[in-house]
Amino acid sequence: MTFLGFTSTPAIMTPILLNCMGSEHNEFIKQHVQVNNPYLEGMEEDILYHFSLSNKTHNLPEMFGDIKFVCVGGSANRMKAFAQFIHQELQLPGNPEEITDICEGTDRYCMYKVGPVLSISHGMGVPSISIMLHELIKLLHHAQSRDVVLFRLGTSGGVGLPPGTVVITDKAVDYSFRAQFEQVVLGKVITRSTELDEGVASELLQCSSELQNIPSVIGNTMCTSDFYEGQGRLDGALCSFSRAEKLEYLRKAYEAGVRNIEMESTVFAAMCRVCGLKAAVICVTLLNRFDGDQITSTHDVLTEYQQRPQVLVSHFIKKRLGLIV
Amino acid sequence: MTFLGFTSTPAIMTPILLNCMGSEHNEFIKQHVQVNNPYLEGMEEDILYHFSLSNKTHNLPEMFGDIKFVCVGGSANRMKAFAQFIHQELQLPGNPEEITDICEGTDRYCMYKVGPVLSISHGMGVPSISIMLHELIKLLHHAQSRDVVLFRLGTSGGVGLPPGTVVITDKAVDYSFRAQFEQVVLGKVITRSTELDEGVASELLQCSSELQNIPSVIGNTMCTSDFYEGQGRLDGALCSFSRAEKLEYLRKAYEAGVRNIEMESTVFAAMCRVCGLKAAVICVTLLNRFDGDQITSTHDVLTEYQQRPQVLVSHFIKKRLGLIV
Repeated sequence: MTFLGFTSTPAIMTPILLNCMGSEHNEFIKQHVQVNNPYLEGMEEDILYHFSLSNKTHNLPEMFGDIKFVCVGGSANRMKAFAQFIHQELQLPGNPEEITDICEGTDRYCMYKVGPVLSISHGMGVPSISIMLHELIKLLHHAQSRDVVLFRLGTSGGVGLPPGTVVITDKAVDYSFRAQFEQVVLGKVITRSTELDEGVASELLQCSSELQNIPSVIGNTMCTSDFYEGQGRLDGALCSFSRAEKLEYLRKAYEAGVRNIEMESTVFAAMCRVCGLKAAVICVTLLNRFDGDQITSTHDVLTEYQQRPQVLVSHFIKKRLGLIV
Repeated sequence: MTFLGFTSTPAIMTPILLNCMGSEHNEFIKQHVQVNNPYLEGMEEDILYHFSLSNKTHNLPEMFGDIKFVCVGGSANRMKAFAQFIHQELQLPGNPEEITDICEGTDRYCMYKVGPVLSISHGMGVPSISIMLHELIKLLHHAQSRDVVLFRLGTSGGVGLPPGTVVITDKAVDYSFRAQFEQVVLGKVITRSTELDEGVASELLQCSSELQNIPSVIGNTMCTSDFYEGQGRLDGALCSFSRAEKLEYLRKAYEAGVRNIEMESTVFAAMCRVCGLKAAVICVTLLNRFDGDQITSTHDVLTEYQQRPQVLVSHFIKKRLGLIV
């Protein structure tokens, strides 16, 4: 696109210029992160409570206006490690050990900014990541960020894959293998699509082929509301089904294209889609659920597995930034 | 009950004695924490993955056999503060500042043991607390703990109550105000009751009347899957309803006996009930949702509010232990 001579990654425009652009700048504005809430503009202050940030007490455009890649994952330690890793990968100045948690005023989430990359933890499960996404999308909107790509880097149970395989999600599906997310709004259930960006997924698969030791596939990801009964585990405090029934459910999932199971992908896909954000889900499998339920690999093996989505996304980011061809 | 001469808080019995007691000890055994999973007994090792504990690498009866009160809450910092507070309240030896996180091998949850009290964080939302509860119930089962009472100490949005009110939950209800929790098992939805222990709730209300500045009520608690659209907030990234529709929903909730809204109570009540554990939910309200959506009180005011459920439960525990009459 060539409006005002900008290419696809324009430098930051001042808000005053944006305000003067009139109705012809729709295509440009589309690249901005969109909220879908008519009430937000009328609010004197917007407190992003679970980040311990606000658009009144913090200069969000200055802090976050240059963000192009947002990487999210469940564990606070892992997302800190990713921030330090991407700091080294992008060869940025400063000591990666000294990065500070932007959300240090709260322990709900942690957040690190490394150049154009934001690394945030989201806890476990749909509700936890959903709160984070509402506040993240508002943050990016207030910051006037544009051309942002979101990645969820996670761990998962594999379905018919060797442990350590990276699954790049095609469709995020629910417990009935439907590519949809059910959201309750004022006591009524509405349904949202969970399709992810095909282009970003293909680009990630291409990246994996350029790397050593990152075995990767594109497949569907099943998102459940719990780790035990909902995923057919036989080792929870409650279990009312047989081993044969468990295996039958996993077999049906495999036939529906499911290659891994985790707990956040559907709402992540649905919210990004509604807000026009390109998004991808990249989870490594820690075990093959056809072989068992408990995660028995050693700490070192699990640590190496968990780095695989990070290495893959880092490669993607470096290519997008033109640091490698 | 008088079996073997024990009163309601018997000293720990050795496993060998328990194993020799035959079928007549059903009433005694009932006080043990029950799992509902026939597969567990046959497992050579049970790795409590999200606690970074196992019944093979840790002596769980020795570590946890004397636990009588388990207090859980969303925030790791808050549950550490509670552990330090109850340490002082019970006048235990040692420095409360030096308590260590039993789950230091993982950042999913934190766990502190203070005498007969266990304090654990559970993150935000039903899936996050559900994982913790599966592993907690297995932990208490492996540890042969008995006569355990569980408390969820949380924060919430109030419905028609002044901020700072402590709501002791009568029934935990879903978005349609039904006292039930829908659990997906192998792709099928089953329904569990969410009734809590009436006796413990009454005892807590009695405790509140003995304390200064802990305004408390018994009421229903609505549990939602997210903080924004599901709770009728007008300040999320997505909002498709009007202020009038929001207020109408809150009014209907109030008429159904709902006095506060949070995100974990239904699965907490349902799982404790299925496993025969006495349980209570005690959440302070941070705002009155009829008046707004954003949490605007100062940090100091919010901190004082968050201590109220802690003070109340501490009083309950001290009475149960006979430290105050």
